[in-house]
Formats: sequence, structure tokens, C-alpha cells
Amino acid sequence: MAKSKEYIKSLINVLEGLETKNMYQNDFFHTWKESDDEIMAVFEVAEILRGLRENNISAKVFDSGLGISIFRDNSTRTRFSFASACNLLGLEVQDLDEKVSQIAHGETVRETANMISFMADVIGIRDDMYIGKGYTYMKTVSESVQEGYRDGVLEQRPTLVNLQCDIDHPTQVMADMLHIINEFGGIENLKGKKVAMTWAYSPSYGKPLSVPQGVIGLFTRFGMDVVLAHPEGYNVMSDVEEIATKNAAKSGGSFKKVNSMEEAFKDADIVYPKSWAPFAVMEERTRLVENGEFDALKDLEKKCLENNAKYKNWTCSEELMKTTKNGKALYLHCLPADITGVSCKEGEVDASVFDRYLVPLYKEASYKPYIIAAMIFLSKFKEPGKKLTELLERGKKRIN
Amino acid sequence: MAKSKEYIKSLINVLEGLETKNMYQNDFFHTWKESDDEIMAVFEVAEILRGLRENNISAKVFDSGLGISIFRDNSTRTRFSFASACNLLGLEVQDLDEKVSQIAHGETVRETANMISFMADVIGIRDDMYIGKGYTYMKTVSESVQEGYRDGVLEQRPTLVNLQCDIDHPTQVMADMLHIINEFGGIENLKGKKVAMTWAYSPSYGKPLSVPQGVIGLFTRFGMDVVLAHPEGYNVMSDVEEIATKNAAKSGGSFKKVNSMEEAFKDADIVYPKSWAPFAVMEERTRLVENGEFDALKDLEKKCLENNAKYKNWTCSEELMKTTKNGKALYLHCLPADITGVSCKEGEVDASVFDRYLVPLYKEASYKPYIIAAMIFLSKFKEPGKKLTELLERGKKRIN
Amino acid sequence: MAKSKEYIKSLINVLEGLETKNMYQNDFFHTWKESDDEIMAVFEVAEILRGLRENNISAKVFDSGLGISIFRDNSTRTRFSFASACNLLGLEVQDLDEKVSQIAHGETVRETANMISFMADVIGIRDDMYIGKGYTYMKTVSESVQEGYRDGVLEQRPTLVNLQCDIDHPTQVMADMLHIINEFGGIENLKGKKVAMTWAYSPSYGKPLSVPQGVIGLFTRFGMDVVLAHPEGYNVMSDVEEIATKNAAKSGGSFKKVNSMEEAFKDADIVYPKSWAPFAVMEERTRLVENGEFDALKDLEKKCLENNAKYKNWTCSEELMKTTKNGKALYLHCLPADITGVSCKEGEVDASVFDRYLVPLYKEASYKPYIIAAMIFLSKFKEPGKKLTELLERGKKRIN
Repeated sequence: MAKSKEYIKSLINVLEGLETKNMYQNDFFHTWKESDDEIMAVFEVAEILRGLRENNISAKVFDSGLGISIFRDNSTRTRFSFASACNLLGLEVQDLDEKVSQIAHGETVRETANMISFMADVIGIRDDMYIGKGYTYMKTVSESVQEGYRDGVLEQRPTLVNLQCDIDHPTQVMADMLHIINEFGGIENLKGKKVAMTWAYSPSYGKPLSVPQGVIGLFTRFGMDVVLAHPEGYNVMSDVEEIATKNAAKSGGSFKKVNSMEEAFKDADIVYPKSWAPFAVMEERTRLVENGEFDALKDLEKKCLENNAKYKNWTCSEELMKTTKNGKALYLHCLPADITGVSCKEGEVDASVFDRYLVPLYKEASYKPYIIAAMIFLSKFKEPGKKLTELLERGKKRIN
Repeated sequence: MAKSKEYIKSLINVLEGLETKNMYQNDFFHTWKESDDEIMAVFEVAEILRGLRENNISAKVFDSGLGISIFRDNSTRTRFSFASACNLLGLEVQDLDEKVSQIAHGETVRETANMISFMADVIGIRDDMYIGKGYTYMKTVSESVQEGYRDGVLEQRPTLVNLQCDIDHPTQVMADMLHIINEFGGIENLKGKKVAMTWAYSPSYGKPLSVPQGVIGLFTRFGMDVVLAHPEGYNVMSDVEEIATKNAAKSGGSFKKVNSMEEAFKDADIVYPKSWAPFAVMEERTRLVENGEFDALKDLEKKCLENNAKYKNWTCSEELMKTTKNGKALYLHCLPADITGVSCKEGEVDASVFDRYLVPLYKEASYKPYIIAAMIFLSKFKEPGKKLTELLERGKKRIN
Repeated sequence: MAKSKEYIKSLINVLEGLETKNMYQNDFFHTWKESDDEIMAVFEVAEILRGLRENNISAKVFDSGLGISIFRDNSTRTRFSFASACNLLGLEVQDLDEKVSQIAHGETVRETANMISFMADVIGIRDDMYIGKGYTYMKTVSESVQEGYRDGVLEQRPTLVNLQCDIDHPTQVMADMLHIINEFGGIENLKGKKVAMTWAYSPSYGKPLSVPQGVIGLFTRFGMDVVLAHPEGYNVMSDVEEIATKNAAKSGGSFKKVNSMEEAFKDADIVYPKSWAPFAVMEERTRLVENGEFDALKDLEKKCLENNAKYKNWTCSEELMKTTKNGKALYLHCLPADITGVSCKEGEVDASVFDRYLVPLYKEASYKPYIIAAMIFLSKFKEPGKKLTELLERGKKRIN
């Protein structure tokens, strides 16, 4: 059901009480670099933009301009989410098609960043393949275009949106979080809720760490009890665990690590079972790729798959779901999931569990374009509330 | 020469007399699912949109929004036609690039359909490779996004345009038909005209059936005498033949099948010589692909090419053209044609015949973007005539 | 720093004194086909469009419409420049993706040109791979769509922009020239300045001739002393050398050929050291590709690389730069450059030289989108000054 205009106005009022001036002309890299006000502002703007669209009101704030997307790995969902966000605001997407996912070097990055940015208002980058590389690449691009703007090469400073790096996946986990907020009827209802972010078995290797890291880095800010569960050896980055610990302390929630999926699921309100590769393996993998040690790389893959196979019982089964709060925990996934008997023989989740949560899963995903649009919006307008009020009052029809 | 505004108004008047309410918020799959009024409405809107463009009047009705294209086979013409139609109306095209033309499965389709549709107003699909698969895929996509809309995942219901399936090719054959209407000076002049839809030799294998099926399914609705000619064994789907028979009876025309190109061409007003694969072969091919029987697939191809070669005399030669009405039948083709001595040694048509009809052939093709735009338009506006009058009166310049 | 509106008005005044009526509804192929007024008009419009953007004023003159790009070779820079130019003016880019860089044939070109142009206002083509082919291809496309427009197939005549052919690279060298004009504080300061367009060593083979040819064809029109330097055998097309000679005579400058990089650099104000393949080799290469003589092609490549290697001392070293005017010649390159010790072991330029000129090099490149936009603009408006005044006075914000 479409939000009423009155309700949209109330959201704008909330937004106007938040401090967002540091987001203006700035990048969005990791959620933990943003203040609580800034995180809340993204949620508010996302909901407001969605409300405008539900009411067939145009949110086109750019008359022209480009949104550049750089996907250093295949992607359908994120590609369409970014394209949707850009289109909503009036930017045309131009893809930089890099044939092979490669580890890029400094000078080349600087040159390319400027060459593609002459009319760019925003650059969205997904580079999650190599530990220690993705975020570094994004920072280099950002610094390059800032220099380009300063030196008069570019007429505007393109701001960056991190569409997934090796460390965080902010557009995904903020979409996840906005979904939770809506499912639980407001942020005020989240205090004390138990979230199980757990590893799950998948017959594949090398899945990025950015989702579990993003989740523990963000979800610990809302007073929830966040539990990270994985088999021994499947650690995530310790830096992010420290962030999670600090966040939890500050928000009045908790952050705990366990080595048992059962323990994590027990009485959980929210479960997020998902496969990832161990941090140490991802580091080793990056080193081998850099050195061109392809035989060693094959060995590493083989060893990893064998190790994964020891933990096939780490799966989101019906039995396990029954142990969650009232047997009805909210099941989350960033999609696509490895579904037992559907997309693979044995995977992350039982088909019957996945099927029961189809609509919520699609809703979860549906927030992502609005989260991306909100990040762009907040980087482009110093007074976002004022601009959104203008759009609402102008009431220009999207479908004329 | 550009249509006058008065003439455009008269077209809108005709449109306003037609019943189009079932097209609103609906898909366009097969011409025979549309009423006579609905078919006529597509022609009228196509001509009106063309008239607006000729007069440099903008037909941009979408302020923002995406047109998603899914091409499960290579395509230049249809791709550009769809992109042109979307651009004309204000939608930005976003391609879903599926690396390999594959037979898709239910759940994956449902998920992907929703993931790409968050800002989608229209989805254009071409999936003509596998008998029993293309249309099924489209229906699954349509149902998926309808559910997504109903469940609040999507803010709008994206409507589908069939850009070619295994059964029909409505945007092509309606462009063909609008071309005929214009060449013969109006729909009222078509009664009793003879159309020869005939198979023709081509040194290739596995060409889709959607054009001959689309032609007999549509052209029989205008009181014409439609003759379908092919060598024995090159049958099209019997369901569509039944539709053609019923249409002909209703429209006061006729539908006849013959096994001789000569008989079909004799005194024909319109000829459409084009290669296709036998329905039974296409069925077998689908089965072999599904079962991964690639050796059998190669045998099938070999057998087919050998069989094709028996009918090299099925070609649109100068001699044959001379036997048509006054030797001047209108030659149609969906392009690209296999031209003897140009694109192949022996093919569908003599080079001299093809060359003589170059301009009409290009005109025929030029209707397609407008036909697609008309289908989109009619699915998005409950009162299309009113909206088009608004556009005409607003008179906003396309090139400012 | 943004140009003031008063300054933009003064540029429009200059533009209004120039004769541009032959550019209207016309293509831009080679700079030497354009009058001095026409060349100046491109520079003026480029600066005006840049000024508008600096002032956040929209230059969107197309409400809808397509810019078709055909890249018959990989390209990132030119692709983004063309996309930026189109976006600035309101055209959406649609790429014609030709899988392989191939030598195209007449009829197919004519058909394809029409099929992709139904909504095309402009077509940008890059086809620089084969001597005697690229420009020929562009002319065929242009003639095809002119016929299509005349015959009523197309509602508008798409105009062509040469994004690089085998003969000229007008968008590059005009961006280079506009950069020079700005660096030297105006066109009136260029008389008597010495430009060294010199061959430089690169460990690659088959680099196009269009940049050196474009440079001598254009730079000789401004009263400068243009020196073309290359090792014996690395000739460019003699036709273009004749053009350069005539231009120099007319403009009061000079055009000279030498076989020594040292001589060319001596006291030069501007240096443009860049690798290219000998004209005779490029001719031979085209012949071998056409005849499918791939073994001979490999031999040719091997022979060329060996020959190149004799001239490794043809490199833009710090020592050589010291011999230029005050040791501070403006260093130009179309990018990407082969930088010694960075992108290759031995290349066109010392890393320290290249690094010192990074900002000017990026600025040089930054003019290209505006040059392309100016070419499009001048082909679409009979009274460009009037239209630009309208845009300036309307003052519609680009970022709303």
C-alpha cells in the first residue's frame, strides 16, 4: 500500500532532525564510517524515495548526468539495483566493462578514473574478489577523481558508492536492515532481538566475506544481540569483529561468537545463514593470484572444498528453524541462495524453508535500489529534506 | 512526408472508438489473444506516435523508468527497435545479458524476474529458440512480476511485450501488416488480396517458426486469401493453423495450404518467402538439448540440412515473381534475408528481386519500433486517446 | 574556475560571427573538409557547453533520441566521451556491438545502418583498423541513412561523427588543439610556435596513423611551425602531408619533415611523441587480412616489431625534453601512453616526464566530450548561437 503524502512529510521531518552535512560531496564506503544520524538518514531518504514512487511522483533531480558502474565480477542484482537507483534520480548508467576481474595497479586506475568521469556524478563499484584489494581500489578511484575535480579536469566531483568490496557490502546490509525495521514495525522494536549471522555449507569456494562482515558491523548498532557462528577456521576479519564489539557495547546490545549453528539459531528472532570462505584462505588466494601461482591456486581450491564438505550439517533445515523464536525467525539472505535439492544437492537452506520466505526475501532485496538512491541523494544535496519537500510539493508525475 | 496535425487528430478519433480497456496493465503475447479492436488500436497508436515524431513533437510520457530487455538469442534489429520504442516514450533500456541461450527453470526465473524489475515498467523478451519453451518462459516471467506487484515487492506491474517466442512474433508481423495497410492505401483495400506465405530454401538450419505462424495467425483477420506453402514435412504448429482457419472464416477471407511455391505465388498480391525448420524437427531438437544428447543433435542438424537441400528450387526467383499479380507482388521479409549470390550461394531470394524491394523492405522494418511503442503505450494508459491528444496539444518539441 | 555568464555570452557573440550553415544536417569526417569558420565554431561551442555545465546549466536540447555508437575496435576513453557528449545533450547511447573487428561489405552495411537508425539523431563510429576501409565504411553508413531519410524510412537524418578512422581522428586532435589554445592563452598566441609531432618507440605493432595525420592536418592551420619526425620508412599518407603543406602555406606557418627526433624537439613549444605503424605496412596488413593470409600476417607483425626495435632511442626522455623551449615544451598524448618502466620496459616516454604532465594530459582529454557534443550540436541547429543563448537565459539547472 502506498505511503500517504502526510506520512512522507513526517519522514522528511525526521530527516531534517538528522545531521547529514558530512555526507554532502562525500563517498559511502563502510557503514561504520558513518554516524548514527547518517545511517538513519539513508533509511529515511530510502523510504521517502520509495513513497514518492508509490505515489507516482518523480524523484528526478538530475536533468542529465552519468552514473558509472564498475563491476569487477559478474552481477545481475546489484547491476540492476544501481541502474534503477540512477534512473530514479535521472542519471544514465554507463558501464565500464573490464573484461577480466583483475587486480588493478595505481597509475592505470588514476588515469582510467579520470577518463570515464568527465560527466560522472556518481561511480558505483563492486570489487569483492580479493582481500586487501577491493576497498583499496575504490579509495584510489575516489582520490583520483577528487584530484581531477580539484585540478579542473572534471566539472564535478563524482561521489562513490561501494556496491561491495572485500570488507563491507553496505548497500546489501542496509537493505537487509531496512527490511528488518519494517518487518518488526520500527527501529524501537529491535532492542534485545537475537540475530544469528551464521556460516552455512555450500558446494562452492571463495564466496566473499563482505556480507557477514557487513552484517555484524551494522546490526550491532541497534541494540540487538548479534551472534556470529561458524565452524572453526572460518573466521572473518578481526578488525570488523572489533567494530562489532564496540558497536554492541555502545548500542546496549551484544556481540558474541560461537562455533555452533544450533546455539546461534536457538531462540533467534532473525537468522542469516550464508556461506563464505575463511579470511586466511582469501588472503592466501590473493597472494597466489598476484604471484601467478595457478597450480597452488587449484590446490587451495581443492583443499577448501574438502574442508567445506566436513560441515554439510551447517544448513538451515526445517528442524533448525523450529528452534528459533516461536519457530518463526525472520530468514534473511542476500540471494542467490544455494538451496538443497534445487540449485545444488546439499546447500545453505532447505527448499521448504526458502520457499516459505520467498516474499519476504524479495522484499528484502527490493530495498536495495532505494538504499543506493538514498546514498547518491545524500551525497548530492546539502539540504536533502528541503529538496525532498520540493519534490513532494512539485508532485511531477513519473508516468505522465 | 509528415502527417498533418489534423490527420493525427483524425487517427485519435478512430482510436477513441475502439475498446482497449483490457490492454491496460496487460501483456502482449500473441496477436490472436487480442480482439480486432485491440489489434486496430495498436496500428492507430503506432501511426499516431510516428506522426508526432514526424512533427518533432515529444511522445515522452515517462519521466523515468526502465524498459528491461531479455534477449535469449543474438539480435540487432529487435534490440534497436525495442530501445527506440522505449526511448521514444521516456524509458531507459537495461539489458539482461544471459550469456548462453539456455532453457530456464521455474524458480530461478521467478527470482530473477523480480530482481530485475524494481523500477521496470516494461519487459521485452525474445526467446524463440526452443519449441514449447519461449512462450512458457515469458508467461512465468509475467506471473512472477504480477505476484511481485501484488505482494508489494514491486511498486508497479511491469507489462510484457513478446519480442518473438516459439509460437508468434507479434511485433514483426504487425509491422509487416501495417506496412501492407500503407502500401495498399488502407485496410479496406485488403479484402480478397492474395498473400503467399511460403517456405524458401536457406543453407541454414533451425530457423524459428514464429514468423510464418505469426503471419497466418494475423493476416487471416483482414479478409485476405492467405496461402501457406511449404515442402512436405515442413509443417508449422497445427494449433496456429486452426487459428488461421477460424480467422479466415470470420473475416470473409480464406486460408489454404499447398505444397507448391508456384501455386502460392500465382497471382499473389503479396509474397513472403522465408525459410523455417519443420515443427517436428524443432520439437526433437528441444528434446535433445534438454537431455544433453549433443551427438544426436549434430546428426539431426546434418539430416535437416540434407533435407533442406532437396528444395533449393523453393526460391523467390525473378521467374516466379513474374507469375504474381501483374508481376508486381509486394515482397516482404523480416530481414536479414539469405540472398542468392550475396549472403550465400543459393538462398531464399534472387539478388535482383531483393534489390528492387530494398526501400519497401526498410519501410516494413521501420514500423517495428512504433508497433512496440504502441503496445507499451496501450498497456500503460487507460485512456490512450486522451493521453495522445494531450501530447499533441502540448506540442513539446522533441528536438528543443 | 567556472566561466562567468558574461564570458559565455561573449563566446556566443564570437560564434554568431562565424558561418556554420553547411554544418547543419551534415557529418563531421575530417577537419580539412571544414572551413576555418567551422573549425572555430566547434571550439566556441565546446567552450560554451563546458561553461554551461560549470554553471550547472542544462544543455539538454533533445527531449529524447538516440546516439548510436559503433566501435569496431575496443575503446574505453572514446566510448565514455561519446556517451558523455550524448548525455549532455539529452541523447541516450545505444551501442552496436560488433563482436569482431571485421572489414564490412556494402549491402550489409546499408541494411544495418537503416535498421539501427529508426530513432537515431547521431551515429558515432570508430573504425581505424584497416587502411582504406574505416572512412569508406563511414561514408557508406552516411549515404545509407541519407537515402533512408529521403525514402521515408527514417523520420530524421542521423548525422555522423567520425570517432577515429584510418585517415583522421578529428575529435582527438581538436581536443588536443583546444587544450593548446587554452594553455597558450588564445589562438592569437600560436603564430610561430613550434610543434613536434614525432614517432616514438613502442613494443607494439599496428598502431593507427590517424593521430599523426590528424595533427599535421589540423595544427598547420594556426600559423605554427609543424615538424613531423619519424624514422625512415614510417611514412604517413602522402595525401595528408599535402594537405598539411597547403594549410601551412595558407596560415603563414610551416610544415617540415625530418628523420630525427632531436631535430624536431629542438626549441619546440609543443611535443607529441607517439608510436604508429608505417603506412605501407598498414596497407599490406589490410591486403593480407582481406585475403585471409594469416601466416603472412604473422610474418609481417614479426618483421615490424623487429624493425621498431631498431628505434628504441626514439623516446621522449628527460634529456630530450631539456632541449625544448626553456626545457618546458607542452607534452601531448592521446593516451594511453607506453611509459618506460611502467606499462612496458621501453616505451614512448620516460615515467618522470609523463608524471610531470599528468594534469595537463587529463585536461587535454577532458575537452573531447565537449568537442563531440559541439559537433553534434552544430549538425542539429541552424542557428547555434541563438539556441545557446536560449539555454543560457533559460538557466535550467542540471542538478535540480
